[in-house]
Amino acid sequence: MGAELVELEPGRAVTRMHVGPEHLNAVGTVMGGAIFTLADFAFAAASNSHGTVAVASDVHISFVRAATEGELIAEAVEVSRGRTLAHYDVKVRDGQGRIVALFHGTAFRKDQPLKRRCD
Amino acid sequence: MGAELVELEPGRAVTRMHVGPEHLNAVGTVMGGAIFTLADFAFAAASNSHGTVAVASDVHISFVRAATEGELIAEAVEVSRGRTLAHYDVKVRDGQGRIVALFHGTAFRKDQPLKRRCD
Amino acid sequence: MGAELVELEPGRAVTRMHVGPEHLNAVGTVMGGAIFTLADFAFAAASNSHGTVAVASDVHISFVRAATEGELIAEAVEVSRGRTLAHYDVKVRDGQGRIVALFHGTAFRKDQPLKRRCD
Amino acid sequence: MGAELVELEPGRAVTRMHVGPEHLNAVGTVMGGAIFTLADFAFAAASNSHGTVAVASDVHISFVRAATEGELIAEAVEVSRGRTLAHYDVKVRDGQGRIVALFHGTAFRKDQPLKRRCD
Repeated sequence: MGAELVELEPGRAVTRMHVGPEHLNAVGTVMGGAIFTLADFAFAAASNSHGTVAVASDVHISFVRAATEGELIAEAVEVSRGRTLAHYDVKVRDGQGRIVALFHGTAFRKDQPLKRRCD
Repeated sequence: MGAELVELEPGRAVTRMHVGPEHLNAVGTVMGGAIFTLADFAFAAASNSHGTVAVASDVHISFVRAATEGELIAEAVEVSRGRTLAHYDVKVRDGQGRIVALFHGTAFRKDQPLKRRCD
Repeated sequence: MGAELVELEPGRAVTRMHVGPEHLNAVGTVMGGAIFTLADFAFAAASNSHGTVAVASDVHISFVRAATEGELIAEAVEVSRGRTLAHYDVKVRDGQGRIVALFHGTAFRKDQPLKRRCD
Repeated sequence: MGAELVELEPGRAVTRMHVGPEHLNAVGTVMGGAIFTLADFAFAAASNSHGTVAVASDVHISFVRAATEGELIAEAVEVSRGRTLAHYDVKVRDGQGRIVALFHGTAFRKDQPLKRRCD
């Protein structure tokens, strides 16, 4: 999809993508699936930033403003973290900083240590 | 993404995709974004099946079971439809009919007639 | 709140309440909190119907139609149940059978056996 | 329910309640319905703070921590506001400032001016 992880620290991640024609629907706006995927990527990075595997359980997304071109940036911030569940708010903004979507993700945390791809 | 619309009637749509390596995350399961996109496609088709434009406003998705291979099928059914808002339940199942995700979408209906791509 | 449990079987529950002046907001319609509480009661009954404790983790509710008087009925149905998470759809209808709200609840299941009040 | 509005300004509201025995379920924790109602009250106050009527369309709530006694405080903050839809994040905390629930509400804005109760 062309998204990249641009910032990562414990409990926080930022992802970014450039809108291309492959992301647009028939009406000429970025598809919900592309916006969701960008936010989900930030959510996954932030929720897996503590060394153990976390998987998405429930996600709610509100689509606030149509995006048509330029850059989209998603920032995921950990709002709370318990032993088995953790919660993240993700804001997706366009290149002008306007909110495009609001995403809330609940992650289910496993005991399993995270195996890094590069190991 | 390789998803296709396999059924469409007023207020109902079915989409399908074959899981490929491009849909898998580091843990080897289908990414949330791919599952969301398949469900969102069915939701968009069903909510735009009445001749006027409808856009996604709020979506909630629960990830129920990890999928790893084979086929995924999403069926969107209209639960209610008012003048400006309409509601759809989408169930995503794997090739064995087991539920992979539950998606609920609220669509905002515009007065604007739907322009078909093929016009 | 005056709600009562009228049906209960494994994975399914029905609750009912009569709308009174104490449930109405300034605009004369039943408050969201009252509708949520009725649906949540059905969700709790259904998710605790298997003998072990289940607690609400995530809930999404769409308010579909304003209710002003008469009876409200909520039916919770189990859509899937795993070892730790289970999912329920709850439909709230008015006395004419029209959908008032759509509620989806995710329950977190504990190992703890359910202690009944009457024990 | 015993909740009160303690702060209100355009786009922001704070509500508070003292936990009493009537708010507890069989397990001795505050019922989801009471927590939702407190958050919904703050959401309603914040979304109706601009002089026109706004009604709840979609709400998502994550229950983060069980509350058993003391005070609960909900703060609603407007995240975005368009002509017909507006979005609010509500955090519910206990007396120690710990997050009890995370609530996201989408409000549908009507053209209708808000009639105040005291008029």
